Amino acid sequence: MNIAFVVFDGMTTLDFLGAFDALTRLKTMGFRDDVEWRICARTPTVQDGAGLILQAQYFDRPLSDFDLLLVPGGFATRHLEQDEAFLDWLRTAESVPRIASVCTGSLLLGAAGFLHGRTATTHPSAFGDLARYCARVSHDRIVEDGPITTARGVTSSIDLGLHLVGQIAGPEIRERIRLQMDYPIH
Amino acid sequence: MNIAFVVFDGMTTLDFLGAFDALTRLKTMGFRDDVEWRICARTPTVQDGAGLILQAQYFDRPLSDFDLLLVPGGFATRHLEQDEAFLDWLRTAESVPRIASVCTGSLLLGAAGFLHGRTATTHPSAFGDLARYCARVSHDRIVEDGPITTARGVTSSIDLGLHLVGQIAGPEIRERIRLQMDYPIH
Repeated sequence: MNIAFVVFDGMTTLDFLGAFDALTRLKTMGFRDDVEWRICARTPTVQDGAGLILQAQYFDRPLSDFDLLLVPGGFATRHLEQDEAFLDWLRTAESVPRIASVCTGSLLLGAAGFLHGRTATTHPSAFGDLARYCARVSHDRIVEDGPITTARGVTSSIDLGLHLVGQIAGPEIRERIRLQMDYPIH
Repeated sequence: MNIAFVVFDGMTTLDFLGAFDALTRLKTMGFRDDVEWRICARTPTVQDGAGLILQAQYFDRPLSDFDLLLVPGGFATRHLEQDEAFLDWLRTAESVPRIASVCTGSLLLGAAGFLHGRTATTHPSAFGDLARYCARVSHDRIVEDGPITTARGVTSSIDLGLHLVGQIAGPEIRERIRLQMDYPIH
């Protein structure tokens, strides 16, 4: 189980970090030794929308060999939706069996063609923008449609992380991770 | 309003990132032009407990000139509690008017002497450990005692950030930021 956390300049870090915290606990809390992850970008470092600088561990390489890919959102999605080089990089994840997004990350999945004919969600401010990429826009916090799971605004990253933990490791481990994260929403 | 976000090797990034997201929105959403922040560490980069590498913007310098300081937790707090060089660096924040922690970050505030005679909280797994540093351990999610505000486990970072936003900018802006973060807990 190798997880790709996609990052880019101008992202909202919390969009991926909530899910990162939940998913990486599969290993750090000792439940699953086979879970690995990489911070993936097109550049060696990225700077988020509030100036936080992160280092990528896997950059400018195809995303095809991962088992799960997560794409955050942020203001930068508005120009990345038009950035064919970025979208082509995302499209290298086409064969990845589980693909997820948080917030306006779903606009990037949409622009890359992953949402065609599907139901998806995004930040409430972008419900209208998402409509052009998918069959139906849902207002639910987590929306799973086949291999694609999309989550709503920023903090829904935590709910998405717990949802994916439940898929990977079952409800009991999900509950233990939720308690360790001290998250009050079941 | 200059905010110090303290980071260190082995921290839990979500412990500071939830509050970072809420507080930095004071500026990025256009409410307060005078809000600034720095990622503060003793080293130029830090690696969190799950391998994520962040760059510090302000390192190995005293913390005395900030208006608000936030300390995260993580497994590393268990050895940093005994690390006098680290604690001496934290003590340079003694004159900072608002100091906050998330999760086991309160053990570091306690070891640095900031919780003497105060009521504080921490991750539920560390309630017993916190008792040696303060007058009373609270199980509340956010505990404010004079200049020190402590928050419970990992995800309470978001609640802490919104709490501090409310103190700095009032309830209306707090509510607009909560909605933008799509956080369901009032």
